[in-house]
Amino acid sequence: MNPIAVNNYLVSLQNRIVAELERVDGRAFYRDPWIRSEGGGGESRIVEDGAVFERGGVNFSKVSGQQLPPSASASRPELAGRAFEAMGVSLVLHPRNPFAPTVHMNIRFLIATKGQSEPIWWFGGGMDLTPYYGFEEDARHFHSTCRDALEPFGADRYPRYKRWCDEYFFIRHRGEPRGIGGIFFDDLNEPGFESCFDLVRSVGDHFLPAYLPILERRRILPYGEGERDFQAYRRGRYVEFNLVYDRGTLFGLQSGGRTESILMSLPPLVKWRYDWKPDPSSEEARLYREFLRPRDWLAD
Amino acid sequence: MNPIAVNNYLVSLQNRIVAELERVDGRAFYRDPWIRSEGGGGESRIVEDGAVFERGGVNFSKVSGQQLPPSASASRPELAGRAFEAMGVSLVLHPRNPFAPTVHMNIRFLIATKGQSEPIWWFGGGMDLTPYYGFEEDARHFHSTCRDALEPFGADRYPRYKRWCDEYFFIRHRGEPRGIGGIFFDDLNEPGFESCFDLVRSVGDHFLPAYLPILERRRILPYGEGERDFQAYRRGRYVEFNLVYDRGTLFGLQSGGRTESILMSLPPLVKWRYDWKPDPSSEEARLYREFLRPRDWLAD
Repeated sequence: MNPIAVNNYLVSLQNRIVAELERVDGRAFYRDPWIRSEGGGGESRIVEDGAVFERGGVNFSKVSGQQLPPSASASRPELAGRAFEAMGVSLVLHPRNPFAPTVHMNIRFLIATKGQSEPIWWFGGGMDLTPYYGFEEDARHFHSTCRDALEPFGADRYPRYKRWCDEYFFIRHRGEPRGIGGIFFDDLNEPGFESCFDLVRSVGDHFLPAYLPILERRRILPYGEGERDFQAYRRGRYVEFNLVYDRGTLFGLQSGGRTESILMSLPPLVKWRYDWKPDPSSEEARLYREFLRPRDWLAD
Repeated sequence: MNPIAVNNYLVSLQNRIVAELERVDGRAFYRDPWIRSEGGGGESRIVEDGAVFERGGVNFSKVSGQQLPPSASASRPELAGRAFEAMGVSLVLHPRNPFAPTVHMNIRFLIATKGQSEPIWWFGGGMDLTPYYGFEEDARHFHSTCRDALEPFGADRYPRYKRWCDEYFFIRHRGEPRGIGGIFFDDLNEPGFESCFDLVRSVGDHFLPAYLPILERRRILPYGEGERDFQAYRRGRYVEFNLVYDRGTLFGLQSGGRTESILMSLPPLVKWRYDWKPDPSSEEARLYREFLRPRDWLAD
């Protein structure tokens, strides 16, 4: 178990991703380092009002605390209350163009300690895509890149982590998935540290290949006020999921995390409208019908 | 204990309030009755894109269920899991003019039952104001009307419920109150049903006198894009509070409530911006400094 190696990988991943996103946008991300009085700190790399990204951030953080919040490990509540160290990279990008999807990626490493007992460690993470307009080509590309990332670790990983993602990013009060999914995993600590770390690195390294080709295709499409309006409306669902259900967000807010860094995931401009439904023959209705439901994107 | 009398009062209160708000706005509220397959239903009265109200709703609902969610009664978790009946009126109004404050009012009546045991009932409710620009006159008027509503029930009620409101409507991750407060109470069942019902009626009847004079004064003030922008930014705090902390919202979403009626509290247009701070000499900074902190608004 080597937390320093994980730390170094996460920092270099953040740097690589930001450098590439800055190239795409043309605008330098704002660098906001912070420290936390209770221990730890991080660096947020933020973009707002860019040419491509309306708002987004790529955050690195490393925090420790005396009490692991219950939201930190879903399946092992017995760990709650232990002292912990948590480090991770978390990113959310909200492009301005409504044809370009919002994307989220996260990799985290946690260590829970208790007196002289052996520390318990685990990884979690994943990436998922939230389109406002559906393109099958994009969904297939994103999912096949996720599958490629996990392929070396066994053929069952992608289907398992894909299903986990569908279950996790589900807005229960809407009966709707947040987007078209991707992969999600938590509590990963088998068969051993090196193997888990390899898997997590593969996920991190596959983020840019999964997202950039989609962004490059869609960011240049012409759009109008109607599409912007639907994007703002659908972004409301993103807010609802993140504030009501997302364990990463709740973990951050509960553990006294840095609010602005955590809430960089929220979109720049959002609309709510009462009981709105798209015209059944519209592209907006097609998004709900064909994309916002669990699907096997890699079936032939 | 007389649930039918409470039901009738709530429906007539909804009608009175909507009639008066329609007069102010000039636009008829949209009437949306709904039923719930598990039992109960309600009627949402919704306004969007009105002359005065950009979005708002005055909802009546009456639902029953087999399992009272834990969020329903904060101080008596032993009631969780009982069967329940809940009825209430809940309103949120988001005026378009940034000088006119957002307002919230709620009155609820709950009955928890368990086999042959005596049913346990209680009232909860309150009202609170969320300005975007601070006016001492408005804060004093709102709070003095709240005090008037509670005065007949003992001089200690207003200070207790005022403090409860300050504690309840607090956004912990921001270290900020949601607005300038008002009154809040829960678990009210003493000294007896009639007395509690009188108190609750007095709160309901004081809503229009508390809010309308403020609305009438502020809705006519000229404003520009800067004020609209700050309003949209501050509305983000309203969303954060309601989705992360508000027990009424969580109770509704957890108990399989009607999502669109519950989330009518969310503002029509909201902005998030990274780590934004107002110019220290601005009116926006004065809101934080002088209004967004617990204050005794009725001190001489």
